[in-house]
Amino acid sequence: MAVIYAVGVGPGDPELITRKAERIISSAPVIYAPTGAADAASYALSIVEHLLDRSKQQVLSRVFPMMKRGAELEAAWQEAAAEVISLIDGGSDVAFITIGDPCLYSTFLYIYRIIQEKRADIPIEIIPGISSINASAAAAGIPLGIAGERIAILPATYEDEELKKTLLEFDTVVLMKVSRVFDRIYPMLVELGLDKGSVFVRRVGSPQEEIVFDISTLVGKELDYLSMLIVKRWNLSMIKSI
Amino acid sequence: MAVIYAVGVGPGDPELITRKAERIISSAPVIYAPTGAADAASYALSIVEHLLDRSKQQVLSRVFPMMKRGAELEAAWQEAAAEVISLIDGGSDVAFITIGDPCLYSTFLYIYRIIQEKRADIPIEIIPGISSINASAAAAGIPLGIAGERIAILPATYEDEELKKTLLEFDTVVLMKVSRVFDRIYPMLVELGLDKGSVFVRRVGSPQEEIVFDISTLVGKELDYLSMLIVKRWNLSMIKSI
Repeated sequence: MAVIYAVGVGPGDPELITRKAERIISSAPVIYAPTGAADAASYALSIVEHLLDRSKQQVLSRVFPMMKRGAELEAAWQEAAAEVISLIDGGSDVAFITIGDPCLYSTFLYIYRIIQEKRADIPIEIIPGISSINASAAAAGIPLGIAGERIAILPATYEDEELKKTLLEFDTVVLMKVSRVFDRIYPMLVELGLDKGSVFVRRVGSPQEEIVFDISTLVGKELDYLSMLIVKRWNLSMIKSI
Repeated sequence: MAVIYAVGVGPGDPELITRKAERIISSAPVIYAPTGAADAASYALSIVEHLLDRSKQQVLSRVFPMMKRGAELEAAWQEAAAEVISLIDGGSDVAFITIGDPCLYSTFLYIYRIIQEKRADIPIEIIPGISSINASAAAAGIPLGIAGERIAILPATYEDEELKKTLLEFDTVVLMKVSRVFDRIYPMLVELGLDKGSVFVRRVGSPQEEIVFDISTLVGKELDYLSMLIVKRWNLSMIKSI
């Protein structure tokens, strides 16, 4: 039976793709690429474009309306899962490419759930990728965890009280997709004395990459959707001279 | 000035190295490789051996007594940092290789701290690698986080009460180096109904890789030092038919 490969292509820099991802992407008969809006090129696809031979490989770019909720998004996932299943039943291996790592907040996980429910007989192999978290820490020169340190990773949907508790209990807190909530949480970081231990990373590994250690400069600004905040309990200047 | 490259070589599978890591490791004049015991070959070194040309590159394998605490370990780090600094002052770029990702519980972070304190003028570039966490989730077919899920990563040095609280508050909890504490925490997982949502992964990406979904079979056994437990709030059978 044909196989679904869920392939992490890393955060954006084509050099941060693994050998295994390269091998599968350059040889799979079908490349399935998610994209966030109908008029946007797939970011994942742009990272691997140089590996593709469109005269031999079928490249399917499909729209997932990320910002939408509920029925419309569910319908898009159901449709994509059905399409992937039909490709597999037709005998073609499918490489489903995702930014970062497939197991960490990727679009693939929704499709995965549906395919597992409908067709548990289809073999699925997941190829890990460099996540934007690891890449952001590396670019900023910040340890995520050392020795006995505890790490928390929170998506953007957090309540104030819940966030405060986590900030007090963990040595490192990674706030994903922080753009929507930055102005709300900045005062809390100042109150807890954590603002000086925070680093903001935007579109790591892309030409638009930006690393901001003085996060007070971000207050009131329109921030990029693809950005995160890494909050460490100690002052960054102890580790990295900026 | 010469540059220190901290290079993540991934969890063990030589195919899970990035292009960037390959480029730096195959061209750096000096490769600096940590190893856990005097008689053990460096695991990181064994992963990249095929990339090295020992007639042109200097390969320095150095012992860090991981199991030891305090003065002996600190002395080993200080000595390594001094050696790396002297190589840089001699004009050679140094590639310090680490298993997994350099920012996540790596030996490099200790050396990094010392070099930053002593010689903040030395440029250090960190090349992220696939961490054993991402690789374990991929190998087991387990999402680490989907949509609004919260993730906690705990090293092995956790107290019962602290662990229980984290298990109740997070959707996914990754317990690093779980071998030393497994028998102590297993009853807690059963009590919280989380034992069926846990997966044990040993030496992911190596020939000794082992994935255990029925963790009751591990009770009372001698477990590998390089193993982790991923605990999910829901039953794994919902996602992956085993």
